[in-house]
Amino acid sequence: MATHERPEASERERLRRDALGILRQALVAVDPYAAMKAHLRREGDILTVGGRSYDLGRIQRIFVVGAGKASARMALAVEDILGNRVTAGLVNVKYGHAETLKKVRIKEAGHPVPDAAGLEGAREILDIVSTAGENDLVLCLISGGGSSLLPLPAAGIELADKQKTTQVLLGCGATIHEMNAVRKHISLLKGGGLARAAAPAHVVSLILSDVIGDDLDVIASGPTVPDRSTFASALDVLERYGVAGQIPDGVRRRLEAGARREVPETPKPGDRLFENVTNLIVASNAIAVDAAARAAEGLGYHPLVLSSSIQGEAREVGRVMAAVAREILASGRPVAKPACVLAGGETTVTLRGGGLGGRNQELALAAALDMEGLPDVLVLAAGTDGTDGPTDAAGAFAFGDTVARAREAGMSPRAHLENNDSYHFFKALGDLVVTGPTRTNVMDLLLILAGPAPGMADYPETVADPPAAREPM
Amino acid sequence: MATHERPEASERERLRRDALGILRQALVAVDPYAAMKAHLRREGDILTVGGRSYDLGRIQRIFVVGAGKASARMALAVEDILGNRVTAGLVNVKYGHAETLKKVRIKEAGHPVPDAAGLEGAREILDIVSTAGENDLVLCLISGGGSSLLPLPAAGIELADKQKTTQVLLGCGATIHEMNAVRKHISLLKGGGLARAAAPAHVVSLILSDVIGDDLDVIASGPTVPDRSTFASALDVLERYGVAGQIPDGVRRRLEAGARREVPETPKPGDRLFENVTNLIVASNAIAVDAAARAAEGLGYHPLVLSSSIQGEAREVGRVMAAVAREILASGRPVAKPACVLAGGETTVTLRGGGLGGRNQELALAAALDMEGLPDVLVLAAGTDGTDGPTDAAGAFAFGDTVARAREAGMSPRAHLENNDSYHFFKALGDLVVTGPTRTNVMDLLLILAGPAPGMADYPETVADPPAAREPM
Repeated sequence: MATHERPEASERERLRRDALGILRQALVAVDPYAAMKAHLRREGDILTVGGRSYDLGRIQRIFVVGAGKASARMALAVEDILGNRVTAGLVNVKYGHAETLKKVRIKEAGHPVPDAAGLEGAREILDIVSTAGENDLVLCLISGGGSSLLPLPAAGIELADKQKTTQVLLGCGATIHEMNAVRKHISLLKGGGLARAAAPAHVVSLILSDVIGDDLDVIASGPTVPDRSTFASALDVLERYGVAGQIPDGVRRRLEAGARREVPETPKPGDRLFENVTNLIVASNAIAVDAAARAAEGLGYHPLVLSSSIQGEAREVGRVMAAVAREILASGRPVAKPACVLAGGETTVTLRGGGLGGRNQELALAAALDMEGLPDVLVLAAGTDGTDGPTDAAGAFAFGDTVARAREAGMSPRAHLENNDSYHFFKALGDLVVTGPTRTNVMDLLLILAGPAPGMADYPETVADPPAAREPM
Repeated sequence: MATHERPEASERERLRRDALGILRQALVAVDPYAAMKAHLRREGDILTVGGRSYDLGRIQRIFVVGAGKASARMALAVEDILGNRVTAGLVNVKYGHAETLKKVRIKEAGHPVPDAAGLEGAREILDIVSTAGENDLVLCLISGGGSSLLPLPAAGIELADKQKTTQVLLGCGATIHEMNAVRKHISLLKGGGLARAAAPAHVVSLILSDVIGDDLDVIASGPTVPDRSTFASALDVLERYGVAGQIPDGVRRRLEAGARREVPETPKPGDRLFENVTNLIVASNAIAVDAAARAAEGLGYHPLVLSSSIQGEAREVGRVMAAVAREILASGRPVAKPACVLAGGETTVTLRGGGLGGRNQELALAAALDMEGLPDVLVLAAGTDGTDGPTDAAGAFAFGDTVARAREAGMSPRAHLENNDSYHFFKALGDLVVTGPTRTNVMDLLLILAGPAPGMADYPETVADPPAAREPM
């Protein structure tokens, strides 16, 4: 007779362990190196990516370019897959985000404020892809921060002019699409510029998305994506918000020249050059959320993906999460117990106090307040980059007994929330989520576990010997 | 051949019509009169309610008491069901909420601030139920506002003392449970007091819940519900928040006398008097949400109930709703298209501007901003009482083209949101939800429709004649 010991951990610890296991699987799925290996498959001379196959026997040269915080690790995966077949390349990354590579050079540069190093790297990238011919393959590796890390203003425009333009547009309330309409028309690489420079080569962009909605047009301002906006629509934006007078002269002159067709438009949807271009998202919040759902299912939870585009004030999103947790416990809706509800996105915090915390920890604290006294429930919120605000934690766990344990420890949960001091709150409870830097970033992961942890709840005291083979009937 | 004309209304109008149909079904389910008829069933001499049956042949007298904004309509249903079997009764309602009844008297009184009329009615209610014997049935009709409308402070405490106590507890951040621990111990009817006064009669409380979570203990401070709190725990609350000195003398003296066992405790769980007591929720947000889900399913949508206990800042909840809508359109999660996601609860608005609006209209406006450009999507938010803030609307509709239509009409959606001016925004677009007063209140209903409206999308140009009766096989 086989005997299994019944775990002594409390229900809270079982839920915590399951949540961490689910988070870990989600992080593995969006690790830049693992994601590249999952999407760029090589069998002998056949390279398959995004539904297209390339015969390496017919490809002369392979160039690797790109920009973004995770792009060096993406390049490392490319070198491990393609080895000596990589001809050359250059990737712009944020200071401190380099890797040791064989063929691809790394340029460390300024982020979020672009600098001269980024500009120099972007010029070299333009030079590299411009030499590519129809038998060449350009792999473009884009990740979070790719916009600031790929700055190449058109002639007559300084980096400072671009930054001033961005500030003015942010200040007047322009949408991200309106802002990009302008930015794409004063840049040489954005809005499809990189793809045009690389033509007639084959171009495959491999993208790690850190934006809500995974809009290819928006990520790094779409260097290999057709641009729907025009010089005229960019000028419209300035007029609509009455900010034409605040925009640097060089920028305005370029937009006006473009509207007069004196400089070429960005490449548009339907342009034949895009026939050779593939854009593929290899890691994103949706992919992390999917992986988390599969992991939860593997642990015996009923998974439900709520959304991978959650936005809003962290503490209010936390209250909605708590309301969903409450409903699962009360009625088995929107999904039956044991339930794992998954969501992703990126919330924001309006600072009110002088405490220490981050959006995910604050979300968890607000959820804890609304879940007071509920049994068998957990909310986890964590940044997939392993960082939440200016803290060493990725996020925090909230449980039904978080508020009670905090009060026993002499803390006022509401006071900590009002003071934006979620870090010290969860640190005192031992309920921080600490992963260390993950070297990826697909925004945040939120999850609810509700109902006794599966498996354990029905865990038998002993497991009987397997039944003897059945007698024939 | 019968010909059905294909409706010419746009997709937006089809979604709007479906959403209104769903809302209507939800409101019907929580109409106080209809809800009473659904839960209080009479067949001949057998009255069945909440799983118990009463033989009216053995019941001597039936008393009807209660308090709340909808309680007069609930009493009307009782009279229609029981006719002359109603002996007598009295129900306290808010000024202007009377109905014409035969046996049950209506007392109009102050709400939300209790007044002398309410006190007088509450005393009469205590007198009525105190005369009831073991062969009598007391029907207690509780609805929103029932706490303010059933004020009966213990001896030595004035109405003003109770109000002052409530203000102090609200101001110090006490939870609803902590506040109720105090209130139940200075009142004669709350915290099970009414049930005790009615013993040994049979008591059936029929409850229309307007609180998050439908906690019987919380609704109108539980006049027929066992009380878990004690005089000692009530005193603890005052100490915990350091407000004992701010509480009126009469209140403090009563709590101290109770803690010394000089006055009787409220009746506790397990007290035999509750063996004859039934508490039944006849209408609630969860019931409205359920009815909405069934109506949506009937229209061909895949329904998903998210939660009936949504709380938080209206505009942030709106953003979460938009994120869920976006996910459905992008990935068919958390529920496949055509989808109807239902939620309920009550949000709040932090006033920033001087505009006109309500929590539901503001929620819809924030959702519209995050749904800009999405096809085939609607968010509806409406108060089930037909009122949203100081406006003549119950709420509003948000669509994927709301922002674009508003801009065409010369409005800035964000400026309207910042100014809390959602009413003028939606009025100009013709997108207010106007129901008029519904005479019920189970908080708010939120719904998302996503995906082309079902039925219509596949609506045949013509409908064939019905098939001839089948030949025997």
